[in-house]
Order: sequence, then C-alpha cells, then structure tokens
Amino acid sequence: MSHRLSPLLQPRSIAMIGASNNPARIGGMPLDLLKQFGFEGQVYPINPKYEEVFGYRCYADIESLPEAPDLVVLAIGAADVTSMLRRCHARGVKAAIVYAAGFAEMGGEGVALQDELERFAEESGMVVAGPNCMGFANLNSKAFTAFATVFKNVPPQTGIGRASLVTQSGNVCSTVFALMRQLGIEISHFINTGNEACVEFSEYLEFLAQDEQTDCVIGYVEQLRNGPRFIESALAFAEACKPLILYKAGQTEKGSEAVRSHTSALAGNMALYEAAFRQLNVIQAQDFTQMADIALLSGFRQRTGGKRMAIVTLSGALGAILADKFIGAGLDVPTLPTDVQQALRDGIPDYGMVSNPIDVTGNIVNNPDFVRSVFSVLAKTDAIDTVVIYANGSLLDRMAEPLMEICAAYPRLFVAIDTGKAKCREQLVAAGIPVFTDIGRAAAALAPYCHWLDGRAGVAYWAQLRRQSQGAHVERTIAGLDEYQTKCLLAEFGVPPVAETPAADADAAVEAAGRIGYPVVLKVLSADIAHKTEAGGVRLSLQNEAQVRTAFHEIIESARKYDPQARIQGVLVQAMSKGIAELIAGVTHDPVFGGALTVGLGGVLTELYRDVSHRILPVDEVMVGEMLRSLKAYPLLDGFRGRAKADVDAAGKAVAALSRASLALGENAQEIEINPLQVKEAGAGAVAIDALLLTR
Amino acid sequence: MSHRLSPLLQPRSIAMIGASNNPARIGGMPLDLLKQFGFEGQVYPINPKYEEVFGYRCYADIESLPEAPDLVVLAIGAADVTSMLRRCHARGVKAAIVYAAGFAEMGGEGVALQDELERFAEESGMVVAGPNCMGFANLNSKAFTAFATVFKNVPPQTGIGRASLVTQSGNVCSTVFALMRQLGIEISHFINTGNEACVEFSEYLEFLAQDEQTDCVIGYVEQLRNGPRFIESALAFAEACKPLILYKAGQTEKGSEAVRSHTSALAGNMALYEAAFRQLNVIQAQDFTQMADIALLSGFRQRTGGKRMAIVTLSGALGAILADKFIGAGLDVPTLPTDVQQALRDGIPDYGMVSNPIDVTGNIVNNPDFVRSVFSVLAKTDAIDTVVIYANGSLLDRMAEPLMEICAAYPRLFVAIDTGKAKCREQLVAAGIPVFTDIGRAAAALAPYCHWLDGRAGVAYWAQLRRQSQGAHVERTIAGLDEYQTKCLLAEFGVPPVAETPAADADAAVEAAGRIGYPVVLKVLSADIAHKTEAGGVRLSLQNEAQVRTAFHEIIESARKYDPQARIQGVLVQAMSKGIAELIAGVTHDPVFGGALTVGLGGVLTELYRDVSHRILPVDEVMVGEMLRSLKAYPLLDGFRGRAKADVDAAGKAVAALSRASLALGENAQEIEINPLQVKEAGAGAVAIDALLLTR
Repeated sequence: MSHRLSPLLQPRSIAMIGASNNPARIGGMPLDLLKQFGFEGQVYPINPKYEEVFGYRCYADIESLPEAPDLVVLAIGAADVTSMLRRCHARGVKAAIVYAAGFAEMGGEGVALQDELERFAEESGMVVAGPNCMGFANLNSKAFTAFATVFKNVPPQTGIGRASLVTQSGNVCSTVFALMRQLGIEISHFINTGNEACVEFSEYLEFLAQDEQTDCVIGYVEQLRNGPRFIESALAFAEACKPLILYKAGQTEKGSEAVRSHTSALAGNMALYEAAFRQLNVIQAQDFTQMADIALLSGFRQRTGGKRMAIVTLSGALGAILADKFIGAGLDVPTLPTDVQQALRDGIPDYGMVSNPIDVTGNIVNNPDFVRSVFSVLAKTDAIDTVVIYANGSLLDRMAEPLMEICAAYPRLFVAIDTGKAKCREQLVAAGIPVFTDIGRAAAALAPYCHWLDGRAGVAYWAQLRRQSQGAHVERTIAGLDEYQTKCLLAEFGVPPVAETPAADADAAVEAAGRIGYPVVLKVLSADIAHKTEAGGVRLSLQNEAQVRTAFHEIIESARKYDPQARIQGVLVQAMSKGIAELIAGVTHDPVFGGALTVGLGGVLTELYRDVSHRILPVDEVMVGEMLRSLKAYPLLDGFRGRAKADVDAAGKAVAALSRASLALGENAQEIEINPLQVKEAGAGAVAIDALLLTR
Repeated sequence: MSHRLSPLLQPRSIAMIGASNNPARIGGMPLDLLKQFGFEGQVYPINPKYEEVFGYRCYADIESLPEAPDLVVLAIGAADVTSMLRRCHARGVKAAIVYAAGFAEMGGEGVALQDELERFAEESGMVVAGPNCMGFANLNSKAFTAFATVFKNVPPQTGIGRASLVTQSGNVCSTVFALMRQLGIEISHFINTGNEACVEFSEYLEFLAQDEQTDCVIGYVEQLRNGPRFIESALAFAEACKPLILYKAGQTEKGSEAVRSHTSALAGNMALYEAAFRQLNVIQAQDFTQMADIALLSGFRQRTGGKRMAIVTLSGALGAILADKFIGAGLDVPTLPTDVQQALRDGIPDYGMVSNPIDVTGNIVNNPDFVRSVFSVLAKTDAIDTVVIYANGSLLDRMAEPLMEICAAYPRLFVAIDTGKAKCREQLVAAGIPVFTDIGRAAAALAPYCHWLDGRAGVAYWAQLRRQSQGAHVERTIAGLDEYQTKCLLAEFGVPPVAETPAADADAAVEAAGRIGYPVVLKVLSADIAHKTEAGGVRLSLQNEAQVRTAFHEIIESARKYDPQARIQGVLVQAMSKGIAELIAGVTHDPVFGGALTVGLGGVLTELYRDVSHRILPVDEVMVGEMLRSLKAYPLLDGFRGRAKADVDAAGKAVAALSRASLALGENAQEIEINPLQVKEAGAGAVAIDALLLTR
C-alpha cells in the first residue's frame, strides 16, 4: 500500500533533529525506544554535539546524512521549525513530525508561525504532522517517534497489533494506549494529531482505512475540521468493513466548554455529530473500556451476527438479568418461534426456559450431546443473529468442547460470558468465540458492535444515494423570496404546496377564494415580514366573500402598522386544509457536515422533548420514513387512539424533495424550513402550508 | 443485637439433618465448609448411618442431640419436611433452613405442602427459611449452611466482611458473591431467600439494618411480597445511614416475562418500583460490578460528599471526558465561583483550566506545596461536594502525600481515578480515599452513591410525613358517586372544584348558569356513564339561556340513547374556566406498595413520552412541587414561550389534598383520578374540572 502518509506512519528511515543522549528528554526518548524495541530501519540522530547517541551514529546536520530519510522528527523550538523544514525538504525528506508547542494554540505570534508552516507545507507538498503533538508509534515495525513515557511503563505487545489509535490529544493517546494494553488489545498505530496544521484527523483515517495492519480504529475527537473528508474516510471504513470507533468529547455543555478552554476546539452540534456517526455506521463509544471491548469484538468480524440475541444461561434469574441488560442497551431478545422452542425442549427440563432467554438448567453441562444439540439449533435458526452463553467457571468449561465444535461448523457469532474463572477462555477465543468477564461490559460492547454489523447495509445504501446525488447544482436567484415564491421554488423539486394563490388586492383575493373554495385562510405576503401572526397578518376560517374583503383590508393595515418599511405584495389566499398531523422539516448548513436535515412533529414535542431526527444530506424518501418512525411521536402518524393513519409515504416524498432542493441550491440557501408540512390521511398526500428560505 | 432471625443468621450451633460424608452432596458440603473454615460453634450432623462425619460426631436423630441447636438445616425431601420440623420444634430448635424444592414453585401438590409448612411456622413461631433455597453463610463467624460450590472455587476473605448479600435466587447469590470477591469486596452475610414461605425478603433486610457487621446490603429482587414491610426496612436502613443497593429484575417486558417463567414471580410495575426506590433512598443498581463499586464507596461514608463534583486532571481532554461522563450519569459539575478560581489560578499556568473541570497541568506534580494548596482550596469551598482526581500511575503517586494530608485535615470526600498502575492505591484507600481504575465504573458508582448521600434528608422528611399521616382513616360510603359527588368529597379534603352546580331540569340549569356566569359548560351527570363525550353528554361554550336549554335536552336525549339503563341525575353546569395548563393526577392501589400517586400533563405527553412522576403515599405539597419540576413538560407551567407562569403552589396543595383523601378513604377507593386539574395563573389557583372514584 502506498499513501501520502506512508513515510510518516510506516517510515523505513527516521532522522531526529535535536537528538539527545538523555532518555528523559524529548530528543532522546524516541531514540531510546527505537533502540530498545529494535526498529529495523535506519535511525539518524542529528546534533553537532554528539558522535553517537544510543548506539546510533550521530550527524551534524540534515545535509550530512548518507540518504534522505523518509521521516524527520523535529525536537526543536517553534521559531526554528519552518526554516529547518525547508532544509529537510531540500534534502529530499518527504515527511516530518513537529513536537513544538507555541503555534496557533497560543494565539498571537504563534498564529503567524502556524500560518507560515501551513504555507510551506502546501507549497512543498511535504507531509508535516503536528505541531504541538507527541509523535507516533508504529508498534508493528517498532518505529517509535513519540516522546511518550507510557511505552516505558506499559510495554508494547510482542505480537502484531491490529487496532489503531488516533486521538486529538496526546494525553488521551497515552491513557487509552495504557488501558488497551491492560485489557489485552494489541495496537498497530499510535497517532495523536496535535494542531492538525497540515495533516488533519480524517487524512489519518483515510490511511488507516487502507492500512493492512489495521482491523479497526479507536479514536478520540474534539472537533472535526474537515467534515466532507471525514464522511469520505468513514465511507472508506464501511467499504473495507472495518469498525471505526470514536469517542467524541463535548457531549454535554460543560464538556464542550472544557474542550473549548482546552484547545479552543469547537465541540460543534453534538446531536448532529451523533446522527452523522449513526448514518455513517461510525460507532460512537461512551467509554474507553467499551472501545477496547468493541475492538476485541472487531477481531471476530468474519462471523455473522446482528442485534437479535439468543441468551443461553443455566439460571432463569441470570437470563432475566441479561435480557434486561441487552434490551436496555438497545439489542433485541426475540421470543423464539414454536418449532425452535420445540427443538430446544427435547432436552431441557420443564422447569427450564426455551422461549429466550433460554435456561438450559444446570443439568445440561453433564451431557455434551445435548449442549451440542442446543447450540446447533441456535446456530441454524433465522429467528436470531447472535448467541450469548452466560455460564460461570467450570460450568462454562464443561460446555466448551461442543460449543467450539458448533462454532467451527456454522458462521454464526457465539459470545461467552464468564464471571467466574473458566479455564477455557483462551481456547474459546482461539476458536472464534469472544469471552466477556462482566455482563455490563458485554452489553455495552455488544450493542454498538451488533448495530454496526446490522448497519453495514444502510451505509452502503446511503453511499450509493450520495454518489447519485453529486453534481445536481442549479443556478437560481434565491435572495428575497416571499412565502409564495419559496413554495413555488420548492414545488419545482417536488414539494407539494397547499392550494394557494397570491392576491394583490381584495378583488383578486375574493376571486382566488372562489376558485380555491371556502373556507379559506388569508396571510400577509411579504418577504420582509417573518412573523406573520405577530404582525396581525393571518386570518383563518374565512367563510365568504365579505369576510375575505374585511380580512384583506385588516391584514394590510395591520402589517403596515407593524412594519412601515416592509414591502407588501398583498396576501396569500390558502385553502383551509386539514390533516392528521403537522411536521416540521428543515435543512441547515452545518459548518462541519454541510447540509443537514431535521424532522420532527414541531411545537412542544420538538422543544421540550427534543423528539427530532437528523440526517446529513442527501436523504431519499426511504430514509425520511426511517427518520419519522424513529420519533417517539410516530404513533401520531400511525393511527394513534383510533385516528386515521397519515400519509407517511407522501411526507417522505415531500421531505426528500426538500433535500434535493437544498443540494441543488447549494450553500447559498443557508436554511430552508417547511413548517408545517401538513400530512393528510393515507393516500391523500402531504402539503407545505408555510415555507421559509434564508440566504447567506 | 437480638432479632427473630439471629438464630438463623448468627447461629452458635448448627444441626444438619440428612448429613452426608460426601462433600459433593448437599448434606455434606456445608459440613465440609464448616470444618474447613473453622466454625467455632457446635456442629451436629444427623444421620443414623454414620458415627462421625468430617470429624464431627454424628447423631441418629434430633432427639439424641446433647442440646437444642440454634439452627437445623434440612437436607431431606419436600414430603418429609414439615413432620421433621415438628420434631425439631419439640426439641426446642428456634430456626431451620429448608433446601428442598417441590413446594409452591412446582404447583399442584407442592402448593399444599407449602401451605402446610406455612401453617406450621405460623403456629409454632419457628423461623423457617426457604424452602427451595441454597442456604446461607455468615462469613465472619464462618457459619456455612449453604450447599454452594462457589465457596470452594472462590475462597471467602480472611478479614471481617462488612457488605451483606441477599438475593431471591441462589444462582445469583453465588454469581454475585464470586464477582464481589474478585473485585475485592469482603462479604458478611450470604443470604438467598428461596420461596420465602415463612421468612420474606424484607425481614432479612430488617435484620441487616440492625446488624452491626453490615455496612451496606447488596440485593437482588424479582418481586417484593410485602411492600409495607419493605418500606419499613428501607426506612430502617435510612435511619441507620446504611446504603441499601438493589438490583431489580424485570426492567423490560422481556425481563419480566423471564422472571415470571423462572419462578412465577410477578415483576410488578417497574416504574413504581423505581419511584419507590428513589423515594426511599434505596440505590437501584444497573449492574453487579456497579453494586460492588457502590459497596466499596459505602465504606467511606463517614466522609461528607454529594453530587456537585470538582474534577481535577492533568489534561484538559481528560477533564472534558470526565465532565461529559459525570453529567451524563446525573452528577453536576458546577463552574467554580470567581474567588475559588482565583485561588486556584495562583499556581496553575495560563494554559491550565480553573473553572471546573480543573486542569492543573503536568507541572503540578513536581510541586507538593501547590498540590496541597489546590486540594485545600477544594476541600474548603462550599461550591462543590466531592473532589475527583484523575491522574495516572506515577503522576498520581507524586500527588499522593499532599492529597492524604488534606484528606486527613478535612472531612470532604476525595476520590481518585488511576487507569495506569499507581503504587499509592492501597495507601490512598487506607487514608480514606477510594480509588477507581476505570472512568466508566467511577461515574456509574459515584452517581448513585452521591445521590444517596444527598437523598438522606429527603427520606427523613418523608419518614416524618408518613408518621404524621398514620391513622387518618375516615368511614364514608363511597360507592356509586357521580362526578359532582366525587368532587364534593374531594373538596372536603381540600381539592378545589371548578365552579359548578348540578341541575335536574332545564330551568335549574338556566338558573345555575346565571349564577355561575356565561359562558358555561353542560355535562351529563350520571354515575353510570364514564365516557361522557362518547355519550354525547358534553356541550361547551354555551353563551345564553337558549343555548343552555337546547343543550340540556340534547344531552339528556343523547345519554338515554347511549345507555337506556343508566340512572341520569341531570346535568352539571360548570363555569367555562381557563387555565395555563391541565394536569392529570391519580392515585391507585398498587398490590406491592399500596397507595401510589401519578402526576403528569396528560394526553400525548403522558402516553407517548411517559412524562409522568410517581410517588408512594403520603405526599405533601412540597413533594408534589418536586414531582412537577421533575417533568420534562414542566416549562409549560413555568412561563414557556412567554406564557404566564402557572400556580404550581396551588396545584401542589390540590394534589396533596388528593393524597390525604386517598389515605383517609383507604383501599376501598381503589382509584381516584382528577383529570384534568386545571392550573391557573400564579396566584389564581387550581381547580378540578373532572374527577372519578372507582371502588373495589
């Protein structure tokens, strides 16, 4: 594999500028680690003061090296960085790591220094990591470029790591590395991104999506600086079928505040981050330990699993507890079909349970044939995706042989939980069966992992929709549109408006009302008046010509009083339309993710209960259907308390049309909102009652 | 201490009926354990087949023992149990444990056997544990009466345990015991309750609340069979200032189903269990590991803490993560007051953080004076309750000395998190500072523990209210009350009704409307018609005499058609009252907890979002205020979008009056509901618009 970041992350030769012979100093520690762990490539310490450092020949300057190294590490002060990089570039070096702090994160002069650095990197094409970063480690090739004491205290593995670590904080990188090692996870890359002046978080992801020694990535994010590139890299992970597991800081207001005061990063719109992660099948972790456990599960991803769990225990009570735990974590524990229950009942005593959770009772462990038969039934049925066996210590040991046999014969994911001290743990893992030692940790890791397994189809679907939606841009003048014009524009993309006609005077209003049919609504028509009700600009349920005339004059007068400067086109005459429910659907341009759609039932439900669904664009009607069904308020569209069902399909089409409109109009249409989108009885459609378009 | 259960749980002498010399058999295993761990009391194996068992002299029968033992353990079949217990009772035995299954849990004949057992226990006064239980262990006195292999695989501690374990499943008891031991918790009592034929879960709690060797209880509950006794025992825990930590099975429908098919236990109304636990300051655990961690914290309860956390880290990123984690778990991370920030800033560099989370930066560890000064500032300020320090390995080690000094000088709770390998862990624990090794576990345990600390005042308040509310019963005929009579009855207790008058004919209705003032509402008045709107029995906004007359005749005619058998008293004439919001407030009699109040905003908010609050009775207006403020919809009462604020005080008084009414009327008033309770502008009161009373 060859990637722009290869010299940085898989260097064959490393030079250290500012080398020291003191292993406690930043110019010494990486050299010490390279020597200690036996990096096989070339190492070139550079410092005119020394002949030799840690057994490596030391050079006076970059120019005197016998070859151009893949990578230089700069252990020098911020002020000297860019000039030194120029010399390295002249010498033919492709990549560099800059430790120094004192750039943009310090403000003032540091900002200028970082600008200079960025300009140099752009012009030269050199890959410059950092500044203000701790350096990296490729733990498989033993290419240590990090000044991180953690490698002294927590030795790297001897085997080949398959999980990569990439964080926006050096401290977090060390902390998580130590934790992963304690939990037995072997790491391939140790990456922390620093200020990301020239190489941004998502570019590392791009590299790791292709990297053959990376099965999954564990990451820590404060702020994504390049949303579109992040989307691309997440899709690359999806395509490579590798889990991307990210912890996003700033989940609460206090957390965002801490992130901001820490590195001036803006934590962004957390709800949208979460929605985007879900949409991209990125696993949003809640915990470092959980990340380790999901990474562990990733090693078993050749096995087919999903979120419908069968639970097998030797105790009804433990089955009940696991069912609660799994369902609470978002998994399903479906009742097994009768024929499967029947097949299980063959060997399970009456006081056992076969419906799921399955209590095979303590007797089972004495009968390997029966253990085999139970697991083979569960390996074959289509009614579930994943089998979890909870048995402690020697009880699990006695089931291990038949379990491994079945696991060898069928591709289904089997998972064991042992809160005792079973001897078979390592054997099970080697046979393809992950083992958990805590039920809480099992549920916390299995839930997102199984959702990831199930979510692969969805992200592939969206990736295709996204490809199809490229290049749909349309040039249109969209500034200063009034309500009617906005709806006309949206109608071109397929958003049906309510029956309505603009009317400049009372006669025209009466004429329009006659054509639309009474009762009608009159609304003031002006691009300058956003709050029509406040302006006294709305009259409902007008029953006849006289009422329309009166209403027309009252509205105009009231609106003029409200805002004497407003340009008033007249009124909009609308049918007094009735529906089952009213949606709010809006697209905004998020600074990170670009076009983002929000759908909800509006009003109190949206504001107090935050019962809304978000997606990044594009969306189609299938996705809008999923968004609507994910709302707690969805029953209001689905025959709540004997009401008629609403036309969810039509709502899906209208909102998908809004998505197309937003993509076509581009970022100039900063915000488009349909509020309300009235959804009628099933088969009767959905219409935009009001719409608003804000330009930049 | 002396308690009815002392002979069972602290026996000085134990007889085993059905003794075996095989340590793998139920009649042998406890004897083996008693011998192995050196129980110092008398042990009397009983079996005519043997002279000696495990080095203990064996007796032919209970009659030939040299003394009446405190406790007998029956390792014999269900059919022989009660007759054997009669002989034991005749011999002067005070307590017995029955292992045998085959009682109520099997149905059929087993039910009769259990009835016989219960009758015997009641008549004799003998304490009979089980049947269908695994036996107990007092791990401090080494009185093992359990046939549990776990004690062979997981040796009990050598020190004195201070956490007791009581479960409604033998398997769970063993599983949790093993886990607790792995996590380093020392256990005092190992109790599993079996069928609870004669000794019910709460009686064990009662014992443990008094037990001097129990600091906290870890319990597993499927079903509480005696709610009032549970309430008493929970209050005893509160008074003794011991945490009662319970895992309740059946949190999901599937979990309840599993509990039911496991032991026929009814998992009950989970929402009410949760509310009752909260009200009684019982810690509802989500996880066994979490239970262990809370038990660990319980050992530090001499220190003063609470849910306002100060977070101290050496990394801004880790501070942000902890803040997210703690707030997500329900803790507070308040911004520190300016003077405290100032005091901290004295030694923290500019790039550190002082507002909370506090990033003291890596430099601090080299300066013990500064560490001491930071912790002393945090030990003294009233702005927070608990201080959490997250520093890894050697960094924590270097802060340990000054931390312990401050901890010795101030009573505040300090907690350390080390995800590295700090050497000071044991020292810190000995100095009164709990240490966590995982941030997820720290948050999951600290949140309920700190809420428990804070909740002690609330439960004391409620215990007093409960004492004051005793004996308020009133004899009243309450069957067959119509809406008007129900509101009159509730008004006697202080629930204000809307202005209304019953009217038997149209003239009376007109007269009443005149007095009340137009517009008015007419509603059919009949105790036999529950669904007035469906019966065509409601007319709103009647503006004058003519409309009232017409409405009267239409209502009566429509109601007669709807239900020809219904006794119709006439109509109720009501003021057309307007309010800020409408509440629903209902009291039902729960089979476990008795009178329980539910309050919400009714309609969709209650049904789809389950936005309701529950309490067990009694409640007073202060508690109702808390219930209302806990609703997500509370802003609707508190000036949402510029509306006027509602009279929350009046609503509190009205609902508290409903609580008094329910307690006074007793269980015959099976359900009383005010729906809606209309809440007017602040100062303008709250009135019951409709009310319903269902009798048994």
